[in-house]
Amino acid sequence: MFYIGIDLGGTKIAAGIVDEEGKILYKDSVPTGRTRKSAEIVNDLCMLVKKLMREAQLEAGDIYSIGIGSPGSLDRESGIIIANFNLGFRNVRIREDIQKHIPVPVYLENDANCAAIAESVAGAARGAEYAVIITIGTGIGGGVLFHNKLYIGSNGAGAELGHMVISLNGEDCTCGRKGCWEAYSSATALIRETKKAAISYPQSKILELVGGNIEKVNAKTAFDAARLGDEIGIKIVDQYIDILADGLSNVVNIFQPNVIVIGGGVSKEGENLLVPLREKMKERTFYIGDLKAAKLVAAETGNDAGIIGAALIPRLK
Amino acid sequence: MFYIGIDLGGTKIAAGIVDEEGKILYKDSVPTGRTRKSAEIVNDLCMLVKKLMREAQLEAGDIYSIGIGSPGSLDRESGIIIANFNLGFRNVRIREDIQKHIPVPVYLENDANCAAIAESVAGAARGAEYAVIITIGTGIGGGVLFHNKLYIGSNGAGAELGHMVISLNGEDCTCGRKGCWEAYSSATALIRETKKAAISYPQSKILELVGGNIEKVNAKTAFDAARLGDEIGIKIVDQYIDILADGLSNVVNIFQPNVIVIGGGVSKEGENLLVPLREKMKERTFYIGDLKAAKLVAAETGNDAGIIGAALIPRLK
Repeated sequence: MFYIGIDLGGTKIAAGIVDEEGKILYKDSVPTGRTRKSAEIVNDLCMLVKKLMREAQLEAGDIYSIGIGSPGSLDRESGIIIANFNLGFRNVRIREDIQKHIPVPVYLENDANCAAIAESVAGAARGAEYAVIITIGTGIGGGVLFHNKLYIGSNGAGAELGHMVISLNGEDCTCGRKGCWEAYSSATALIRETKKAAISYPQSKILELVGGNIEKVNAKTAFDAARLGDEIGIKIVDQYIDILADGLSNVVNIFQPNVIVIGGGVSKEGENLLVPLREKMKERTFYIGDLKAAKLVAAETGNDAGIIGAALIPRLK
Repeated sequence: MFYIGIDLGGTKIAAGIVDEEGKILYKDSVPTGRTRKSAEIVNDLCMLVKKLMREAQLEAGDIYSIGIGSPGSLDRESGIIIANFNLGFRNVRIREDIQKHIPVPVYLENDANCAAIAESVAGAARGAEYAVIITIGTGIGGGVLFHNKLYIGSNGAGAELGHMVISLNGEDCTCGRKGCWEAYSSATALIRETKKAAISYPQSKILELVGGNIEKVNAKTAFDAARLGDEIGIKIVDQYIDILADGLSNVVNIFQPNVIVIGGGVSKEGENLLVPLREKMKERTFYIGDLKAAKLVAAETGNDAGIIGAALIPRLK
């Protein structure tokens, strides 16, 4: 049997046919066209899946299920996207819509949780009884897994770890609060700080790295500058890692997982990021009496996490 | 059958005989004498239990189990207190020690988790599928319960919600970090702020309320001053509630429980505390698309939470 996973993003809809082990056999994507009506977007999504099935020469009977990873608020039971502000979706009955085209079970899950499922079944959290997966992207996504289950809370909206205030009256967050972890440790926040520094310290290597065009600063720029020995780059990276370590230490004190997996673009820095993080977290986490500490590792499923995790939703309970 | 619960505190050892519903039938306590050897303390604990059993005319065969609530690090499987810094305990085999005197099953649980069990089985979280119990005392204790289970993490030390940094580089915490929630929202923190204000504003009602003796300031003093219309008292209480609301909003965004129960001395302020808390939390919690919000209520088991919760440990799984 094969699983189909769909990563319903603000820019593109990515879909893939995935095997039992979480390996992607076929994948493709289409632009989301997020300003369009939800019916049009969902129709494109179905056409994309059908195209993949044709390529793979699969019938509905070969497909165990279709899973969709979406940000926002979901009704998993009824298969409804209650609210996805990014796409302007309100109460979209996506299960019904898909089943009109392809009569297989359809599952829905939060996008950060899909990344967690991908890492748990096919990535760096394989075999861990308790795992927390932190996806660092536009925001900070959290997924908490234990005993092969996701923690989603009473209303399905739990594990919003990025929306934990770590700095009272701190930086503005998209959620309306001030000082959320996301407002410091997301890629967006790192880019904001890098741009600020580029303006304040035009002599640093940052502007040079982006050819003088500050709009080209991305989440890698400060790390690149630091690698070149640039003082400002080193300072930005150190401050970024310091606050990330604070948030991760909170996660340890709250969840005490066997493993914390860091995903998203920033995680590609690998040990560059993880070595200082581990060092800083040592003194900030709560291990009375030599209790076993959480391992901190980088995600393995990369850009495909969304597809793989969505495909494998039914593998959890 | 009857349950015995023991609250192993730094000042006193409190024990009680509890029925299936969590009602205390007999209770008593002895001073802990925390500077003594662990063997002496454990012996006193056993004598206290035996005394209660005699009073209640119960034999070992009438007792389902003995439960012990202790702070620090525990090995629940082996029945060993790994570290209780408060009592100077290191690797105390308390289950074995007790069973030499009273041959019944002996359970161990963290004290904050015992408070959570008490509220879940016999208090304000009765019937809630997902509940978080926050005990405000010397520190901030957290207990997370769902589907009739405690969340304790991979090493048993999870749910240390008080040791979540909410203010980067903030107030010193006993755990060694700066800015933990506990350093702002514990009774200790409230007393610290009340004393500071009493010194800075000697004209406020605070000093008057404690007969000019600042050492008599307790966690109720600021609330009492506020009730008298004292401006400084009102300000301290408002600031205290404001940060408490931030921490509780984090708890909601992380756990999305059906109910949050506030226990400990400060919770006796009841609706005085809860009404402004609910108001402040409304804008700080993450309920996309009109999801159901957590109820915020005061604990019902009061000072007996430790005994009741310890007694009822085996009622959870």
